[in-house]
Amino acid sequence: MSSLSTAARVAIDLGERSYDILIGPDLLDQAQAFDGVPASRSALIVTNTTVAPLYLARLKAALATRHAVLHEVILPDGEAYKTWDTLNLVFDALLGQGCDRKTVLYALGGGVVGDMTGFAAAAYMRGVPFVQVPTTLLAQVDSSVGGKTAINHPLGKNMIGAFYQPQKVLCDLNVLRTLPARELSAGLAEVIKYGPIADTAFLDWIETHIDGLRVCDQALMAHAVQRSCEIKAEVVGVDERESGLRAILNFGHTFGHAIEAGLGYGQWLHGEAVGCGMVMAAQLSWRLGLVDAAWVARLTRLIAAAGLPIQAPVLDAQDNAGRYLSLMRVDKKAEAGEIKFVLIDAPGRAVVRGAPDALVREVIDACTVVA
Amino acid sequence: MSSLSTAARVAIDLGERSYDILIGPDLLDQAQAFDGVPASRSALIVTNTTVAPLYLARLKAALATRHAVLHEVILPDGEAYKTWDTLNLVFDALLGQGCDRKTVLYALGGGVVGDMTGFAAAAYMRGVPFVQVPTTLLAQVDSSVGGKTAINHPLGKNMIGAFYQPQKVLCDLNVLRTLPARELSAGLAEVIKYGPIADTAFLDWIETHIDGLRVCDQALMAHAVQRSCEIKAEVVGVDERESGLRAILNFGHTFGHAIEAGLGYGQWLHGEAVGCGMVMAAQLSWRLGLVDAAWVARLTRLIAAAGLPIQAPVLDAQDNAGRYLSLMRVDKKAEAGEIKFVLIDAPGRAVVRGAPDALVREVIDACTVVA
Repeated sequence: MSSLSTAARVAIDLGERSYDILIGPDLLDQAQAFDGVPASRSALIVTNTTVAPLYLARLKAALATRHAVLHEVILPDGEAYKTWDTLNLVFDALLGQGCDRKTVLYALGGGVVGDMTGFAAAAYMRGVPFVQVPTTLLAQVDSSVGGKTAINHPLGKNMIGAFYQPQKVLCDLNVLRTLPARELSAGLAEVIKYGPIADTAFLDWIETHIDGLRVCDQALMAHAVQRSCEIKAEVVGVDERESGLRAILNFGHTFGHAIEAGLGYGQWLHGEAVGCGMVMAAQLSWRLGLVDAAWVARLTRLIAAAGLPIQAPVLDAQDNAGRYLSLMRVDKKAEAGEIKFVLIDAPGRAVVRGAPDALVREVIDACTVVA
Repeated sequence: MSSLSTAARVAIDLGERSYDILIGPDLLDQAQAFDGVPASRSALIVTNTTVAPLYLARLKAALATRHAVLHEVILPDGEAYKTWDTLNLVFDALLGQGCDRKTVLYALGGGVVGDMTGFAAAAYMRGVPFVQVPTTLLAQVDSSVGGKTAINHPLGKNMIGAFYQPQKVLCDLNVLRTLPARELSAGLAEVIKYGPIADTAFLDWIETHIDGLRVCDQALMAHAVQRSCEIKAEVVGVDERESGLRAILNFGHTFGHAIEAGLGYGQWLHGEAVGCGMVMAAQLSWRLGLVDAAWVARLTRLIAAAGLPIQAPVLDAQDNAGRYLSLMRVDKKAEAGEIKFVLIDAPGRAVVRGAPDALVREVIDACTVVA
């Protein structure tokens, strides 16, 4: 077991809601990695059927001295379960076990577990403390950081939720080794995202090291997670509740959410949809004259090299572009029916703006797989 | 139609979440009463089957110049419907109508409509603006003010919710005239509450004017609503998220929630349960040596004079006190299974503390109706 002293620390600066992200190997096992989390009598670990056999016992051992009573709830695995009915299993457990306002919730899992546990913590008795222990790359570099929590509604992804910050985020790099290749690629989509919107040098670095990242090289992964969290921390520190800047973190997500909703949640992984969505958003940026074709081609090659889809699925055989557009109009960034896209103004800089429907249709047609 | 200039204004001081409560006759009809509310393109009025026929058309007329598109959703009436399933009707309406992050929600109704609309506003797209237009006395003096929103869970009242402040609260005194006597009495319970916990002069005033209040005398009601809101504003301004002082507003609610949950939501009105709960909490304060028996008798007489029950219902024929105790252990103020009661330390001053089970059992036995 490595020492905590090797872990990197990224601070999220949000006044009284500030907290640390700890990044390092084997954090899961180290009781002192949880220092600063309220030592309440009771705690509830929320995880899923895939993660529980791998890591639940280890987390329980690490928390045994911190909480006298440790409850657990094991949810079904997958985006299709990010619903009210599944969330209610958490409330049933909390109330059934007599958990109170001081009970700490631990999210042990990927983005779905983190989003649902966070929203459960935000809403239970109007707010109890929670800790993120993300076990996927996607959750470590994106969803567990910054306090966005939500569940899906049949009519839209992440439509019901809260901005609610955790007490701490623990990114254990060793857990990434058990990730299936497909999940690792999905996480790389969110890593790649930070390049185009904020840091061209980081984009260059990812390009250089994409093969090593795909096999989860420990040193490379440590840097990828840390730099991603640093960029996210900076953006969230400026705009916690997404009244402006924070929306740039949704690069690739407007098209991506349409793919996820149109195919049915869980068909494509979130990161896969974001990967393809970044290609589409880059295409749209090019068609608006913001970036050149060579840059779009380069980003597209990187997304493919990360093992991600770069061609959009057909969502409607009759009117595919129309279906994409109608799904995107319920995006949370839309205003009065106008879709707001996160586009690349210049490499390393994002802008949130509308685009003519005709141009968006061109992008969808150009990017869609024709069988 | 009276002028807005006759309306009283009570400020809730919460930094960037500050807002005004407006109290006066016929506010519902006055477009300028809504000044300061964001003039978004779309809005959704949430109301119920009882209130809609009385006031929905008037509110829509007042808002017609403020929002181009006015949607509405009419919920079933009653505490029994303060559930996720009913809340989801609001989300269905919001998403079905393509409402976005700027859409303003209006809660037109009593405490149930206000609590559900507020929580819907807190959670929809992680937060949209909302306005409270309370149509019951209870909602005007208590539930619409201070940003507590929630739904019930089968295992406990108001267990799932958020602290989320409205943009404005409009207390139209004329709507109180259509309230059934039973609802008016239920509202008076929350008015009376402010006396014992914060203001003995106000308690004296209520005592003097209880008969006029029960027939909804306009001038008396104006003062009762204003003074109640002032006290609530002061408490909430000090402790928005109930980490301390704010809990005193739950005087009568610990016993009251047990009555509501034990009988099944909707059997007794919330205010009726609080009325009886105040008698029980006063009794417990006396048995702990905090106040004298004469003061308890005086408060009990006033609660009876307000048309409220002063004898507790039997919740379990076998072990009535045990049933009360187990229901109270899931109260949000409970910690590690210890029930925290709001007690009267001295008339006009409340304290939150535990009490020996044996003493609590004595109170329950003494207060329960024996058939």
